[in-house]
Amino acid sequence: MIKRNTKQTVEAIRWKNERLEILDQRLLPSRFEYLTYNSAIEVAEGIRSMVVRGAPIIGCASAYGVALEALRLRTTTTSEFASAMDKAFKVLAKSRPTAINLFWALKRMHAIWQSATGLTSSEIADTLLYAAHQMLAEDYRVNRSMGTFGAKLISSNAKIFTYCNAGALATAGHGTALGIIRSAVEIGKKVSVTVSETRPFLQGARLTVWEMLQEKIPVTLITDNMTGYLMNRGEIDAVIVGTDRVAANGDVANKIGTYMVAVLAKRHNIPFYVACPLSSIDLTTPNGAAIPIEERNADEIASFHGYQWTTKEVNICNPAFDVTPVDLVTALITEKGIVKRPNSDSILRLFNS
Amino acid sequence: MIKRNTKQTVEAIRWKNERLEILDQRLLPSRFEYLTYNSAIEVAEGIRSMVVRGAPIIGCASAYGVALEALRLRTTTTSEFASAMDKAFKVLAKSRPTAINLFWALKRMHAIWQSATGLTSSEIADTLLYAAHQMLAEDYRVNRSMGTFGAKLISSNAKIFTYCNAGALATAGHGTALGIIRSAVEIGKKVSVTVSETRPFLQGARLTVWEMLQEKIPVTLITDNMTGYLMNRGEIDAVIVGTDRVAANGDVANKIGTYMVAVLAKRHNIPFYVACPLSSIDLTTPNGAAIPIEERNADEIASFHGYQWTTKEVNICNPAFDVTPVDLVTALITEKGIVKRPNSDSILRLFNS
Repeated sequence: MIKRNTKQTVEAIRWKNERLEILDQRLLPSRFEYLTYNSAIEVAEGIRSMVVRGAPIIGCASAYGVALEALRLRTTTTSEFASAMDKAFKVLAKSRPTAINLFWALKRMHAIWQSATGLTSSEIADTLLYAAHQMLAEDYRVNRSMGTFGAKLISSNAKIFTYCNAGALATAGHGTALGIIRSAVEIGKKVSVTVSETRPFLQGARLTVWEMLQEKIPVTLITDNMTGYLMNRGEIDAVIVGTDRVAANGDVANKIGTYMVAVLAKRHNIPFYVACPLSSIDLTTPNGAAIPIEERNADEIASFHGYQWTTKEVNICNPAFDVTPVDLVTALITEKGIVKRPNSDSILRLFNS
Repeated sequence: MIKRNTKQTVEAIRWKNERLEILDQRLLPSRFEYLTYNSAIEVAEGIRSMVVRGAPIIGCASAYGVALEALRLRTTTTSEFASAMDKAFKVLAKSRPTAINLFWALKRMHAIWQSATGLTSSEIADTLLYAAHQMLAEDYRVNRSMGTFGAKLISSNAKIFTYCNAGALATAGHGTALGIIRSAVEIGKKVSVTVSETRPFLQGARLTVWEMLQEKIPVTLITDNMTGYLMNRGEIDAVIVGTDRVAANGDVANKIGTYMVAVLAKRHNIPFYVACPLSSIDLTTPNGAAIPIEERNADEIASFHGYQWTTKEVNICNPAFDVTPVDLVTALITEKGIVKRPNSDSILRLFNS
């Protein structure tokens, strides 16, 4: 249903047999398995437990969660439908707190539902499913557009550092940060990528490495604490990362550790680019301090696949995101163009052009 | 044989039944097991494979390696003894390249051997074993002295960040960086410690956490990429780390990631202290660029305890150390006192006072 103008990349989520299928990213790269989702509650749990992760795609997944719920309720009365749908929106909104795309998508779906006056439950369900399909297709187009703009910033033979996974797996396809790298390669630029493992969930080691190897883009893996060492040796020319939320002033929330990368990039005069679809910008959040930071379970740090590598008694702190202040951001790369040295005014203009 | 003036901390190495026993730090904290060593080659392999790690203690271990070899050869002729001892020194010197304490210890042992003219092989062996015992005892005294000086820099209720493990496990006891924390606690200061896991070998998560819990010093574990986040939230008052080699100009080699911690500390105006016995200062290395950085096996990053968490095809970079330039160092804490804002002159004076 989604027309793509280049070779197909991996699908993090897909609509199949009237159900949502989500690629279980917790198992990559050892196993490639889709799980099937039938309701909003199930999708919320899939987002919470990080079967699917990445701001843009959890937005899309939550839209499908809304649609699934409506389909499930299509034979109910209008009042039953309304009450159950209200609950679905609430449970999805509680799945993860930081990525604004989730709330952006739910707000859009809610508005569509609210404006569907005079329709039967079944017709509303069809409308919401169509909207979810459209959102997925739009996310892909947005990534292609960011890729086209961003590729211009990449010089040939550039050694690019990226962090976590802002790739096809985090989006409807192509990726945000990795989409820019892919677009640069498509127009003939040679690039090599370094990614750090991104503890504790290892999105860099497990997901970004896997995506780059699939497309034969040269990739080197390091641990997170080696980033400064490589920068100091001149082995990084540019940093490109994704984002979970950009505040109105340009502060950037992204995977924990992004702030460290940005501080190190600044020290070494390396440009720090943020691939940022407009759906990730939240004009109602004035600055980074107002962005809620998710604290996740200590087990993610204490153990991996059942192996406990520290003592159980230790206190563990596990914030999933941090905030990079706007003064460390060289440019935002959006689907509407590049915003160098962003500020409140230039960000606001993106929405009025 | 070593008189200690406070409660006994863990022994990373110990002389028992005419053999060297080394605590296998690769198994901590799940298992507490000593391995027995009978020759220089075995000790070199124990150092290389990180059964024992930490600059001061690998210096002591190599001294015992020399002594073990001499004991093994005590019934040989003088020329056989000399030839085999030469090989022993060489194999020990090749075990790891970065920590200067290893070469410092071997140089001392070599000088003792060379000055033992007119002695039988058996008498030389006894002399070298005595020297190894003395070196271990001296390292402990040095750590106590650094602790006394360093504790003065720690304010009560300080939230201290440390990295990797510069504790009892890395030394003859008490520790360098952790020794300062222990000494501060001994004189009644309340401190809390945060340590990051220190990928890939997890010395922070496995060893420092374990040491602090043993002594009921409050400790919090984070991943390496969370350091900037905590500093930015005001949750770190001071950083104390150990070192593997300090160059003549004050540049500090230490566990990979230390440079990242120092850059972040600078940004947040947090003092960055290096616990540095004189045995870690190498006046023949002019600056950090001249310090050889060990590159270790990729498997340390690709997998843990047999679980492979990234694809085998990926290129992996695994430097074990990095260099923190002297301008990021607030003070060196040595057994002869504190050197604030160190430079070539103030470092040289340590050896002439």
